[in-house]
Amino acid sequence: MLAGGLGGSRFARAIAEAIDPAELTIVGNVGDDVEVLGLHVSPDLDTILYTLSGRLDEAKGWGRAGETWHALETVAELDGEAWFRLGDRDLGLHLVRTDALRRGERLSAVTARLARAFGLEPALLPATDDRLRTWVATPAGDFPFQEWFVRRQHRDEVDGVRFDGAGDARPAPGVVEAIERSDLIAIAPSNPFVSIAPILAVAAIREAIERRRAPAVAVSPLIGGKTVRGPADRMLARLAGGTGPQHVTDCYKGLIDALVIDEADEGEEAGIRTIVTRTLMSDAEGRRRVAEAVLETAGALR
Amino acid sequence: MLAGGLGGSRFARAIAEAIDPAELTIVGNVGDDVEVLGLHVSPDLDTILYTLSGRLDEAKGWGRAGETWHALETVAELDGEAWFRLGDRDLGLHLVRTDALRRGERLSAVTARLARAFGLEPALLPATDDRLRTWVATPAGDFPFQEWFVRRQHRDEVDGVRFDGAGDARPAPGVVEAIERSDLIAIAPSNPFVSIAPILAVAAIREAIERRRAPAVAVSPLIGGKTVRGPADRMLARLAGGTGPQHVTDCYKGLIDALVIDEADEGEEAGIRTIVTRTLMSDAEGRRRVAEAVLETAGALR
Repeated sequence: MLAGGLGGSRFARAIAEAIDPAELTIVGNVGDDVEVLGLHVSPDLDTILYTLSGRLDEAKGWGRAGETWHALETVAELDGEAWFRLGDRDLGLHLVRTDALRRGERLSAVTARLARAFGLEPALLPATDDRLRTWVATPAGDFPFQEWFVRRQHRDEVDGVRFDGAGDARPAPGVVEAIERSDLIAIAPSNPFVSIAPILAVAAIREAIERRRAPAVAVSPLIGGKTVRGPADRMLARLAGGTGPQHVTDCYKGLIDALVIDEADEGEEAGIRTIVTRTLMSDAEGRRRVAEAVLETAGALR
Repeated sequence: MLAGGLGGSRFARAIAEAIDPAELTIVGNVGDDVEVLGLHVSPDLDTILYTLSGRLDEAKGWGRAGETWHALETVAELDGEAWFRLGDRDLGLHLVRTDALRRGERLSAVTARLARAFGLEPALLPATDDRLRTWVATPAGDFPFQEWFVRRQHRDEVDGVRFDGAGDARPAPGVVEAIERSDLIAIAPSNPFVSIAPILAVAAIREAIERRRAPAVAVSPLIGGKTVRGPADRMLARLAGGTGPQHVTDCYKGLIDALVIDEADEGEEAGIRTIVTRTLMSDAEGRRRVAEAVLETAGALR
């Protein structure tokens, strides 16, 4: 599975609940990783870690449940870098990861250790251990992803996205092998431009999917042309020309064999085989429905 | 004033309450600074910052009042470096300082910023901006200060102390000037071997005190041959041959003109002019008594 943050983590949970979780490998986006206060933060990997280990603040959709904010209060009091919301429990993870990276451990190795410590059964791999950073071009200028997303609250329209470092980025160990070995490649209902595209920007990952033998199924992030959260609908409208299933398909040209769409988008042209279900994964029943649609589609395509 | 951690911070408060606090310059020990989880921690400077700004956990004698420990819980859960007790509020300060140091700011400049943000009136200077680290030699081997003090709970007897980097360490900006300009040099009732000696290990600081024109007064950390807290009494017994006023005086040979001792040690040989009072600074009255003894002695010596 290729996965971004919240949509990715919910979908990962859905699949992990529907199959043997040890059979699931999640390839996570690192394009929105950010250095804050000298700490290496991997928001998408962390949302997946927290979701799959029952630690996510489900109401907020990011960060840890039962979180406190005392460290950041001090940072603000001392006029430090306090724009990126780092909770106390969350900070512990960033400290351990950053310390490990500084000692020369690779992101994939640290991530595996953190996942093990949190009792995760699926494998969680960053797309790459190399530095790959998403930048967005807006009428107000170019920004690193989190500057735009968090600090500017993604208020600027996006005219383009680029992935610094993608040209030299190699897939993290195990990513290409997982794609080649899999009997289903799934793309989560994450933002195609800033969650999935940074994964596909690693050429060897894109190529492994292009030459796949297993079926590939994406879940559309749209429900009635809107996203549950985040700016993917605005970005689809501006960058792909619309917010229908076809525009999602266009993002994954040559990379998917079917698209799972929501009932609310039924009947619209998709340009690919579609499966219709209710795609909101706000509870166990919703997750079961989406997982079932994906797994059955893959079965039918084989 | 030369000051270590808790004894230093209480004495700093005592003097700051007795004179115009803006007239006080505190030169703090950095020999027990430590890198934990990639963070630069300056325990003695922080205890002074917290004490003088009303943020100290007075019961514990270190760290912040109203502290929580969620980040460290995560660190422990992830099998990270959790032996050094870093609270959440405290962490915020270490993050800001470490980030600033990594950007090339000097410790003295960061410390001044932190002190200003916390509303401190006295000037707080680290003895040096250079790397100076206290090591203790024990029957169990040589240890960096915090390894011995915190991780091994200072259970090993100390056969010797050395200060890595002291040979090349220059005084932080303003330290020598403050000594030369002062009309009273005071040495706090801190551990002579691991709180004050690392400051005096910076040759230019020791020399500035040796050639002083102002009177220099130390406060003995002993009350009836014992210290209120910490291993100074055990170290005096083993390294200086006893726990009387004379053994404290011996630590400051050529550097002080008088020693303030506790009533409980009255009558014992000190080898220098002594002033007797009650030296416990557990409340405002205790602080007032000690400050008065020091200030009156200095006045008499001038």
